[in-house]
Amino acid sequence: MITYEYKFRVAYPDTDKMGTVHHSNYAKYYERARWELLRNIGIPYQTIEDAGIMCPVISMKFKFVKTTKYDELLTVKTTLKAIKGVRIWFTYRLQNEKDELINEAETELAFVGLNNWKPCVPPPFLVKAIEKYQHDSTTK
Amino acid sequence: MITYEYKFRVAYPDTDKMGTVHHSNYAKYYERARWELLRNIGIPYQTIEDAGIMCPVISMKFKFVKTTKYDELLTVKTTLKAIKGVRIWFTYRLQNEKDELINEAETELAFVGLNNWKPCVPPPFLVKAIEKYQHDSTTK
Amino acid sequence: MITYEYKFRVAYPDTDKMGTVHHSNYAKYYERARWELLRNIGIPYQTIEDAGIMCPVISMKFKFVKTTKYDELLTVKTTLKAIKGVRIWFTYRLQNEKDELINEAETELAFVGLNNWKPCVPPPFLVKAIEKYQHDSTTK
Amino acid sequence: MITYEYKFRVAYPDTDKMGTVHHSNYAKYYERARWELLRNIGIPYQTIEDAGIMCPVISMKFKFVKTTKYDELLTVKTTLKAIKGVRIWFTYRLQNEKDELINEAETELAFVGLNNWKPCVPPPFLVKAIEKYQHDSTTK
Repeated sequence: MITYEYKFRVAYPDTDKMGTVHHSNYAKYYERARWELLRNIGIPYQTIEDAGIMCPVISMKFKFVKTTKYDELLTVKTTLKAIKGVRIWFTYRLQNEKDELINEAETELAFVGLNNWKPCVPPPFLVKAIEKYQHDSTTK
Repeated sequence: MITYEYKFRVAYPDTDKMGTVHHSNYAKYYERARWELLRNIGIPYQTIEDAGIMCPVISMKFKFVKTTKYDELLTVKTTLKAIKGVRIWFTYRLQNEKDELINEAETELAFVGLNNWKPCVPPPFLVKAIEKYQHDSTTK
Repeated sequence: MITYEYKFRVAYPDTDKMGTVHHSNYAKYYERARWELLRNIGIPYQTIEDAGIMCPVISMKFKFVKTTKYDELLTVKTTLKAIKGVRIWFTYRLQNEKDELINEAETELAFVGLNNWKPCVPPPFLVKAIEKYQHDSTTK
Repeated sequence: MITYEYKFRVAYPDTDKMGTVHHSNYAKYYERARWELLRNIGIPYQTIEDAGIMCPVISMKFKFVKTTKYDELLTVKTTLKAIKGVRIWFTYRLQNEKDELINEAETELAFVGLNNWKPCVPPPFLVKAIEKYQHDSTTK
């Protein structure tokens, strides 16, 4: 189980006339957060596409707990839950500076060929990096 | 149970480098679709906010079944599932011109005060319009 | 000189905490408007990309005259000003239902190869459609 | 003349099917960049709104010089050109890691009352912070 904390500020266009963040933006926040998790174990997402494989989202769900607003400094705590077969699962907890929970979410992504969109196994270098990170964490 | 079909074309900026629609946009499509459902029973969403009440999303989930692409003509089949207490539920089926299912989703929204964000009952004119529409449909 | 009127409603996520439309969205409105102009003369933009040519924006400018808000029904009056060499120019006037000017803008686009991004002449079927439309309009 | 360099990575949803960044996103990049410039002289933009004043964009123009792509690390070099009467002007140069120019732009913003949208002079604490920063830079 790999975790990573990604911090960012709420941008102005992310807000809507309610004065808070439009709900469609959370999917964007979590996408950034999961790729920063991968970057942190040495695999920027682009290297997966460079290897001819993409990771489209195949299901996602969100629970909105508390509002947030422009310029707040938020933290996404991302967990890589599992990678199995042709899929990978992440969960997310979004918190504000007072450590209050703003939103929680889950996403399920598939590995598919860049050209044919057919499901495929993840690139070996990704599986290896995940195993290495988990091994190193356990033995620390 | 009220249903409504909303048609639209996929815009260019909705696509990403995968060549398909970025997953964050579906939340925007469904938001438009549910407010068109309400407009169709005589209650444009703005009239709810004009009455001092807002409808933030409190949970949503999406299942991505098939890809779509730029300029495709899509149809959202929205169903108002229930309105009860301080909440309202919608479900959505997004289809392409061949009637293939692209995506399905559910959203749960709350009624809250525009100024205090406190949960509240829906405006009476909305409840009445829903009841009237359902009554008229049943007796037709 | 070809003109076209494209009507649309302001979507909720297009607004920001000012309560009006975020300025970045006007570029999206005008993009839709110019491709609807082309669709109207028989050339959906996708057919240009299908012919191996893309039209990236190379310069654009905007003048914000009046604010607009959620759910307003707006009209973009687009004019295809010129197509010459490897470029095409459009101008736009955005108006509300009272015919008040909200925004005006100009965009300059280039024709480039889909694979090499090298400037190229527009596809002959586009030039022909523009000439035919102009001829038909003049002789009507 | 105050300048500031803001660095960021291109996010996935900022790309479109051309494989590069959709032109509407540059307005968002520059908005972040100018408010980071103000934060750097001690005035987060939110403090201006807290004082009852907003800064809507009243004109903007962009010149697209070179493409950029997903995950590239970009730098916006923002210059506060002038603040005079009820307006403030910024210019921007967007560069990639090789210091190649991607885009350049200018924006003109107005100061307006939060409630009445009437043009007004900038808040004194902003003018003071700008003057202090310029004075300190000159005498260093």
